[in-house]
Amino acid sequence: MSSVVLLLSGPNLNLLGTREPDVYGTETLDDHVATATATAAVHDLEIEHFQSNHEGELIEAIQGARDRVAAIVINPGALTHSSWAIHDALAAFSGVIVELHLSNPKARESWRHVSVVAPVATGSIVGFGGDGYRLAIEAVAAQLAP
Amino acid sequence: MSSVVLLLSGPNLNLLGTREPDVYGTETLDDHVATATATAAVHDLEIEHFQSNHEGELIEAIQGARDRVAAIVINPGALTHSSWAIHDALAAFSGVIVELHLSNPKARESWRHVSVVAPVATGSIVGFGGDGYRLAIEAVAAQLAP
Amino acid sequence: MSSVVLLLSGPNLNLLGTREPDVYGTETLDDHVATATATAAVHDLEIEHFQSNHEGELIEAIQGARDRVAAIVINPGALTHSSWAIHDALAAFSGVIVELHLSNPKARESWRHVSVVAPVATGSIVGFGGDGYRLAIEAVAAQLAP
Amino acid sequence: MSSVVLLLSGPNLNLLGTREPDVYGTETLDDHVATATATAAVHDLEIEHFQSNHEGELIEAIQGARDRVAAIVINPGALTHSSWAIHDALAAFSGVIVELHLSNPKARESWRHVSVVAPVATGSIVGFGGDGYRLAIEAVAAQLAP
Amino acid sequence: MSSVVLLLSGPNLNLLGTREPDVYGTETLDDHVATATATAAVHDLEIEHFQSNHEGELIEAIQGARDRVAAIVINPGALTHSSWAIHDALAAFSGVIVELHLSNPKARESWRHVSVVAPVATGSIVGFGGDGYRLAIEAVAAQLAP
Amino acid sequence: MSSVVLLLSGPNLNLLGTREPDVYGTETLDDHVATATATAAVHDLEIEHFQSNHEGELIEAIQGARDRVAAIVINPGALTHSSWAIHDALAAFSGVIVELHLSNPKARESWRHVSVVAPVATGSIVGFGGDGYRLAIEAVAAQLAP
Amino acid sequence: MSSVVLLLSGPNLNLLGTREPDVYGTETLDDHVATATATAAVHDLEIEHFQSNHEGELIEAIQGARDRVAAIVINPGALTHSSWAIHDALAAFSGVIVELHLSNPKARESWRHVSVVAPVATGSIVGFGGDGYRLAIEAVAAQLAP
Amino acid sequence: MSSVVLLLSGPNLNLLGTREPDVYGTETLDDHVATATATAAVHDLEIEHFQSNHEGELIEAIQGARDRVAAIVINPGALTHSSWAIHDALAAFSGVIVELHLSNPKARESWRHVSVVAPVATGSIVGFGGDGYRLAIEAVAAQLAP
Amino acid sequence: MSSVVLLLSGPNLNLLGTREPDVYGTETLDDHVATATATAAVHDLEIEHFQSNHEGELIEAIQGARDRVAAIVINPGALTHSSWAIHDALAAFSGVIVELHLSNPKARESWRHVSVVAPVATGSIVGFGGDGYRLAIEAVAAQLAP
Amino acid sequence: MSSVVLLLSGPNLNLLGTREPDVYGTETLDDHVATATATAAVHDLEIEHFQSNHEGELIEAIQGARDRVAAIVINPGALTHSSWAIHDALAAFSGVIVELHLSNPKARESWRHVSVVAPVATGSIVGFGGDGYRLAIEAVAAQLAP
Amino acid sequence: MSSVVLLLSGPNLNLLGTREPDVYGTETLDDHVATATATAAVHDLEIEHFQSNHEGELIEAIQGARDRVAAIVINPGALTHSSWAIHDALAAFSGVIVELHLSNPKARESWRHVSVVAPVATGSIVGFGGDGYRLAIEAVAAQLAP
Amino acid sequence: MSSVVLLLSGPNLNLLGTREPDVYGTETLDDHVATATATAAVHDLEIEHFQSNHEGELIEAIQGARDRVAAIVINPGALTHSSWAIHDALAAFSGVIVELHLSNPKARESWRHVSVVAPVATGSIVGFGGDGYRLAIEAVAAQLAP
Repeated sequence: MSSVVLLLSGPNLNLLGTREPDVYGTETLDDHVATATATAAVHDLEIEHFQSNHEGELIEAIQGARDRVAAIVINPGALTHSSWAIHDALAAFSGVIVELHLSNPKARESWRHVSVVAPVATGSIVGFGGDGYRLAIEAVAAQLAP
Repeated sequence: MSSVVLLLSGPNLNLLGTREPDVYGTETLDDHVATATATAAVHDLEIEHFQSNHEGELIEAIQGARDRVAAIVINPGALTHSSWAIHDALAAFSGVIVELHLSNPKARESWRHVSVVAPVATGSIVGFGGDGYRLAIEAVAAQLAP
Repeated sequence: MSSVVLLLSGPNLNLLGTREPDVYGTETLDDHVATATATAAVHDLEIEHFQSNHEGELIEAIQGARDRVAAIVINPGALTHSSWAIHDALAAFSGVIVELHLSNPKARESWRHVSVVAPVATGSIVGFGGDGYRLAIEAVAAQLAP
Repeated sequence: MSSVVLLLSGPNLNLLGTREPDVYGTETLDDHVATATATAAVHDLEIEHFQSNHEGELIEAIQGARDRVAAIVINPGALTHSSWAIHDALAAFSGVIVELHLSNPKARESWRHVSVVAPVATGSIVGFGGDGYRLAIEAVAAQLAP
Repeated sequence: MSSVVLLLSGPNLNLLGTREPDVYGTETLDDHVATATATAAVHDLEIEHFQSNHEGELIEAIQGARDRVAAIVINPGALTHSSWAIHDALAAFSGVIVELHLSNPKARESWRHVSVVAPVATGSIVGFGGDGYRLAIEAVAAQLAP
Repeated sequence: MSSVVLLLSGPNLNLLGTREPDVYGTETLDDHVATATATAAVHDLEIEHFQSNHEGELIEAIQGARDRVAAIVINPGALTHSSWAIHDALAAFSGVIVELHLSNPKARESWRHVSVVAPVATGSIVGFGGDGYRLAIEAVAAQLAP
Repeated sequence: MSSVVLLLSGPNLNLLGTREPDVYGTETLDDHVATATATAAVHDLEIEHFQSNHEGELIEAIQGARDRVAAIVINPGALTHSSWAIHDALAAFSGVIVELHLSNPKARESWRHVSVVAPVATGSIVGFGGDGYRLAIEAVAAQLAP
Repeated sequence: MSSVVLLLSGPNLNLLGTREPDVYGTETLDDHVATATATAAVHDLEIEHFQSNHEGELIEAIQGARDRVAAIVINPGALTHSSWAIHDALAAFSGVIVELHLSNPKARESWRHVSVVAPVATGSIVGFGGDGYRLAIEAVAAQLAP
Repeated sequence: MSSVVLLLSGPNLNLLGTREPDVYGTETLDDHVATATATAAVHDLEIEHFQSNHEGELIEAIQGARDRVAAIVINPGALTHSSWAIHDALAAFSGVIVELHLSNPKARESWRHVSVVAPVATGSIVGFGGDGYRLAIEAVAAQLAP
Repeated sequence: MSSVVLLLSGPNLNLLGTREPDVYGTETLDDHVATATATAAVHDLEIEHFQSNHEGELIEAIQGARDRVAAIVINPGALTHSSWAIHDALAAFSGVIVELHLSNPKARESWRHVSVVAPVATGSIVGFGGDGYRLAIEAVAAQLAP
Repeated sequence: MSSVVLLLSGPNLNLLGTREPDVYGTETLDDHVATATATAAVHDLEIEHFQSNHEGELIEAIQGARDRVAAIVINPGALTHSSWAIHDALAAFSGVIVELHLSNPKARESWRHVSVVAPVATGSIVGFGGDGYRLAIEAVAAQLAP
Repeated sequence: MSSVVLLLSGPNLNLLGTREPDVYGTETLDDHVATATATAAVHDLEIEHFQSNHEGELIEAIQGARDRVAAIVINPGALTHSSWAIHDALAAFSGVIVELHLSNPKARESWRHVSVVAPVATGSIVGFGGDGYRLAIEAVAAQLAP
């Protein structure tokens, strides 16, 4: 089985560190990728990271992961709430899928309460800030364990 | 009048053949394009096919079809349910528009029941699997007939 | 297998040709039946047509088709939007079912957007006017092809 | 600071292992408590576990945790979807709060999609089965870390 | 006629004084009972107070009040918004019923705007903090006056 | 501080005594003003009463109360359910605001369940008939007490 | 197979006979249990009855019935409309389940029209007053018959 | 008093035995009428049975029952969910009315959860398959008993 | 121009006089037809009356009126609230259309508030009991006047 | 009994004749009052007309009609859709009340479909243009007839 | 053509400068009228200003503007959200109509998101504080330019 | 401070001049940019224009504007109604934001009434056609003025 975990970041996550730091923290996306990479190494997993502000590129990254990577950890940003196309792409992926959010959407505006990605995810980890990246990789590793 | 029919395929349709084959069948998108092309030839029509996982590219393909192609046959994939921008692009096209789906969305999840494309289509053909491509071109040919 | 296709027409379709011709065209129901019959002949199929303004008669026509005809092509007229009894009758029919509409309901009043028949149909063909009858029989023939 | 983590289990979780094992797995609640305890030990934390089928007892357990325990990990069972009284009790607790579910509610019946507990939780971990207990304690430990 | 007024307090009201003091004030439940008792004395009424975090116990307190006490003053806490069982118990009580809230629920989250208790209450007093206890007893006394 | 309490009565309250006496009682509005005045006197407060069937006059009465009266007690009648303009006028008043109803709207037609005034009131007293006037002034006096 | 039928009665059913007799009749719960017991005897079944005003106790009674009793007949009282926890407990019971109501909830307030218990019941018997107890046991006996 | 019970069967019930036997069982409608007739005989009642796929005929059967039969047992089939005309016809019948369903609609599609007949029925019996016919006649007999 | 006015009466109107006389009065349908006939005579109009409990027959009566009668006065009974097929039949009639009700549906159950016939009627007359028949014919006569 | 009929016209009806004549006709309000007056004279009734753009003045006109006039014919203009205060004023009037509209609101924008006045009217006459005034007085005369 | 622009200000706008200055600013309505007047002068336009807390007066001001003024700039205050009567008055005005708000209603409470005036306005300018008055007159001038 | 104003145009705005000219006018996007540029020059501001049919490119243009441009004027085209990702990108921009539309969306289809961009805009200017570009820059200049 592949040891690659695809970490996907949606729109505006490239702004982390400077965007609404009281909500999203002061760590950058690079910091979070580093966290994920370090956690993955412990479990002999490898992180492949891709951030895009384009729904189409995220869809293609998911498509490219089929039959090649073991798991997808995805923080779809604001596309969480509307992108059925990402939903369909994920539905066509047979590995482990973790939905990840830095903040807790249920404690924010009501339109953030809906996730169209959740129904096709194995599970979700939300609200733990940067530590969510570690937890998500931990979750993947356990799911992949024989 | 132009003899070109633009066949547009939205997100994830490039996965046909391997994606949920019990829902979408085992034929590939190339198979469907071949079906459409063969049917078109019978009516002296020509197929121009374009698949994209990017809403923006689909919009631009529709824009580029204005005053150039006779008809658009579009399977917008999951963008069917939310892309008002594709709706607006199609509304600015004055030729025949056929909405096409392989499966029958009304027999699936409720969010698939809404089509924002349908109001600007001439008509829709849904649920007949790969044969829908033949039927859609037949429909176009009849609409274009003098 | 039976070579009979039952063509069912719901309430007010007997008025075709004179009823709102800008919406439904100037062809009569007989014209449409002739179109269907001609198309059927090409495929060695036979059309049995029945129009009724009575939900009960339509239900019984569907019941009478069980184990006897190969396919049902139905334009339920305004019963499309409310007749769960026709839905249930069709659900008890194991052959091919095509929902057919002359106009495109999605481009009209909102109450016409709902079809309680669609969930039990194999597929739907809407918006192509009289040509829809030809397309529906073509669709049936393909579905029945071995 | 206290090193105690209160692990709360709501109605019917005492049936784990025998209740719908295809949904909830074959591990018992004791198994899960053992997982949590082992993980806690790594972080010098202590698990206090309480299961109840009574909303009132869960509320009182939360009240009793104020100013005494460092964090609450709660799987409220079916009370997740309606107990504003548990919501209010948690809102009066100033430590870390983790909402935990074995299955992924978003992939099940629609009434399971609403959580009245989520808005007052620090974060949520759902869908990872028994491993969720380990992840929840990991999350708590990180949140408590200086 | 009985001179007893049953004062009922629902879930989390035992936390008054320390729970969100900016919303609920710094007075304790004992303070409020004292206020009610003092007001009652002026009108030759007697207060019987019962607080519970258990819906079942509140129901039984209401049942026990039938044919025995003259009035019920109830602050059902978060059960206000969902407990039809308390509604039914109160509906079986034939005396005066006052619904009481310290804060003004209409100025808070939308789920606090619904009261399932209100339809069976004689009247409601909300938003006056601890003084509401005095006003509620005043209201009871006037309703009971011959 | 001012010792004036503005008592405002909305549309149709001038009919009290003869209008649906089974719902609103047989006391007239003058009776209720007298009750309020008597209660006010006990607390060294003065009642200024104004009834109007015109939303605009009620708004202007509220505007005229700014920086001049200590509290407003308002029974907006049927304007309770729709007048955002009264809501806005009250929001611009910085003193105590009591919403008052003779009957219990929650026990009547569903459109009476919504109050657009409640969110800007200090508190509400509903359902106690004419005694509500005494209670409202009592509530005001306590809120104004140093 | 067990010959025991667990008869469960929810909140406020202990008041039968005196509570709103025009709705619920003048028979007491004991009378109904006697009816059930007599009917059961005819079929060599045994009635075990439990009434509680506590959701938690009802859940535990259902849990205790697993693998021990043949059927559950439950009148959940007002918990019918909101207790997903009772729903989940019943879902974990593999025997016959009959939902029973004395009155016809569909002819009463709209909030009584929803039953969260019905989806997991074998069937329901509502509206026949005390005779419902006889009918429910008759229904159970037939379902259990080999 | 009349000893006749009118048993009414709505659309598609004539298909029983062959229609979706996993949902509706393998017994035919004749079998069910026989069950009802046998049960009726025990109570000196007589069954008059009428099945129709026509709403109008069912309405007229109900009208014809006025002042002539003692009770109506009706399974309106899919008309259950929409026929206010049957509702009105039944409302004009002063005898006992039992609503009967073979399956449990609440455990099926959401549109089957609504019954427009229930509000005018004495009571309902649903989910017990063919045994429901026996139970319905038992219920009628008890209601008619002096 | 034709001097014929088609008076149509829907389901259950044949019961007038005996059905819920407190709602619908004690006059029979014949009485109402006589009223309409007498009024028509004054205006040199002729009444053709047809009552049916069958939606299909009403549709066909409307169809048969096309190009033959000057106006339709219709009381569709409970079909008012759901029959889009009658709506469509009326839409295909180019003369005057009057919707008539004996009672005032807006003062009754909420499902009676919706009329799917109203949007295609010239006007409506509701709530005046038997006098509505006179008023409707008066209205027709005025609309037809040159 | 009084022979006065109060004819009330709401906001913007003073513009009749020049306002959207394709919707409201070219007759002025004076024309309509003349129609009503002439019809009234035939029945020995007298018309008192009052138009206002002020909700408050309309309310007061209704109040002033109590115990003085025999009937109110009211076209509330756009206040039809929102003025619960006019609803309440009318509810306090014990004579005949006719709601009148020139156009057919059900054939226009959806917000015009709701009438908050209808529930307290004896009946309504809508869609007959200026002739509605004659019909309304005819209706009143019949209702007042001994 | 007239050079007059009618500037209309709805309820509570006379409080500007002292009412919630953090939302509405510290400028008074006079300041805003001065801004509008100065801008108008540049374009040879004249400002006529009218503020009222009475819906009826605003309606009459709009009526009085017909065929007399060139444009209306209206800030309806809280009547924005409910006054269909102002909507209808504006619909009867054939000149330019600008809807103006100081704050951005879409960034405030949800009930402020609906404007019943917007559908009949030429355009809207919201959120720019006092500068909106200059922009509105600029917009009017451009719309009126030949 | 920067003197650059970023003018952003969403999907299909590149078609201006030929797309539905009765709705959007005959001016091209270049014409509008010229208008904006000329207006900007008056205020010593500079226009940077970017049009894209790709949500992702618009997001990146907004991201690239942070800390570099003084204001964003955005017409998001059909993305106005659904793109929470653009909402989030704008929320991370600290300068002035103006939402601009050529037509008045509130006077068109209901799905155009919702703007997910408005809550994060400083203000909006809609419905003034090409002149809106001048007004938007005027608005920006005033907001930026010291």
